[in-house]
Amino acid sequence: MTLLRRSVLQSIGLGAASLAVPSFGRRAQAAAPGPAPVLHRFHIGDATVTALLDGHLALPTAAFTGSDPAAVEAALAGTLYQAKDGGVEIPVNGYLVERGGKYTLIDTGTAQLMGPDLGGLSAALAASGVAAADISTVLLTHMHPDHAGGLLAADGSAAFPNAELVIAETEWGFWQDDAIMASVPADAQGFFQMARNTTAPYADRLKLFSGEVEAAPGFTAVPLPGHTPGHSGFMLDGGDTQLLIWGDIVHSTALQFPHPEWTIPFDVDQALAAQTRKAMFERAAADQLLVTGMHIDFPGLGQVAREGDSFAFHQAPWQFGI
Amino acid sequence: MTLLRRSVLQSIGLGAASLAVPSFGRRAQAAAPGPAPVLHRFHIGDATVTALLDGHLALPTAAFTGSDPAAVEAALAGTLYQAKDGGVEIPVNGYLVERGGKYTLIDTGTAQLMGPDLGGLSAALAASGVAAADISTVLLTHMHPDHAGGLLAADGSAAFPNAELVIAETEWGFWQDDAIMASVPADAQGFFQMARNTTAPYADRLKLFSGEVEAAPGFTAVPLPGHTPGHSGFMLDGGDTQLLIWGDIVHSTALQFPHPEWTIPFDVDQALAAQTRKAMFERAAADQLLVTGMHIDFPGLGQVAREGDSFAFHQAPWQFGI
Repeated sequence: MTLLRRSVLQSIGLGAASLAVPSFGRRAQAAAPGPAPVLHRFHIGDATVTALLDGHLALPTAAFTGSDPAAVEAALAGTLYQAKDGGVEIPVNGYLVERGGKYTLIDTGTAQLMGPDLGGLSAALAASGVAAADISTVLLTHMHPDHAGGLLAADGSAAFPNAELVIAETEWGFWQDDAIMASVPADAQGFFQMARNTTAPYADRLKLFSGEVEAAPGFTAVPLPGHTPGHSGFMLDGGDTQLLIWGDIVHSTALQFPHPEWTIPFDVDQALAAQTRKAMFERAAADQLLVTGMHIDFPGLGQVAREGDSFAFHQAPWQFGI
Repeated sequence: MTLLRRSVLQSIGLGAASLAVPSFGRRAQAAAPGPAPVLHRFHIGDATVTALLDGHLALPTAAFTGSDPAAVEAALAGTLYQAKDGGVEIPVNGYLVERGGKYTLIDTGTAQLMGPDLGGLSAALAASGVAAADISTVLLTHMHPDHAGGLLAADGSAAFPNAELVIAETEWGFWQDDAIMASVPADAQGFFQMARNTTAPYADRLKLFSGEVEAAPGFTAVPLPGHTPGHSGFMLDGGDTQLLIWGDIVHSTALQFPHPEWTIPFDVDQALAAQTRKAMFERAAADQLLVTGMHIDFPGLGQVAREGDSFAFHQAPWQFGI
């Protein structure tokens, strides 16, 4: 059976460091034309949302802290999420929101930072008929390279020449802090470098927010700390309907809904990440929130349901909201 | 919350007749441009498969014979499949297969037979870059109007001018049998009329098959009787990978994987339909078959897994097989 062959992260060193860094740079020059653009449009009240697929990466299942091989095998049994060599397929999504003729992009994908099998977001955006220059606001859930990578064009300039860049103040401060950077293992410092490099061209049009405020017109910030210090969701108010775009509350649909306690080395504070995930699942299930996220199976739209002591994700039908 | 508003089948008379007929004709002239084309391409070995969405229809949950409201409510809890007025959303898919430069279409959607919210398959086909005239073979899983409707162009001519039409001999014989047609309730005879009308322009290029034979190059027929007498799946041989396109083994992903015993009035033989579904689920789970179907949630690609005494569907990740 032909399975996916993306394995950028299979070379991650999974040591004791809480911020292990894959060697993204090595493949940066190998970027090749990716697969056909994958996008899906739906409506949230008077807003039009287009899910844009950047691609999939393969994360070793051993990366999930707290997991054990038998439980992983049980969670993946009968699914098609097993990547070659034993990893699990992780999608990378971004979301374009149009409302009142104004375009907001939430996260930007990897561009060329995570290998030639990803970086499809810009082609998906183009296929949606929207030019990068049309985007007036880019919201970042956090500053990891699979979310901020697409801020840069291939020549290193701003990929979104007319966009204001909006990030939580806590998030910005963490990655810009030289003392914190100096305190992490050498191989984890690459995340700081990438966070700084990808956002640098936007220095003169940066908007930092703090707390549960309106981060951009129609988007209320929802602090979700743990994965990163300033990791934030954004609640889109579509009038009669709301959608929570929750960033990296989930990295694997197959593994973390049934096992919200499993974390990954990229969580800056793994204990807090698990706590925030559980609390978010509880709220989403109780309030029947409509949610989407950057690593939920594309297109990522659905609801969370309680299943005993655990949770499940129920994907929305295609053509939801038309 | 904005939910789907397709309710063509909500006017179905759900009486004792095993073949109740919705009044499709009344809305035939109201067809309007549908939503944006929805399609998804994946690879099965050396074959390229494009899932084409015709649209969604809302089936009243009371239509599921053997179900009870509490069990339906439990199965739908936390999902987004509830249509307005209490029905459940049912997608209608077709599949285009390209192999060696030859195009085969498996089922054709509703065209204008089931209201203006469906009929999107031809636009999805066009969006895939394939003209109707390029299709050399149309395989029908069975002759219901949501599968055969698209055989007709708006003017009543053959929508696929160069295609051979391939159907199980048993299926063809059933719908063409005047004695059987005369024996069913008057309001069920419309199915016979539609089956005849939609296939009529292909009378001079019809190929009937019987048993587990090669129905078309690369496609082996899999008899799956019950829903209709000649209801058939087709096993696509992609070289190193196979895909079973199983027609109407499932009408509701949310309801019939957990409850394979629930049937619908459109099953010509409901007991046999349930028996065939259970046997198909058993085989698919045991053999870890890659399957897709015309009413599995779009794009419909995945695997069946046993869950205790019941079953679950695990959708393949996007970009499967690239």
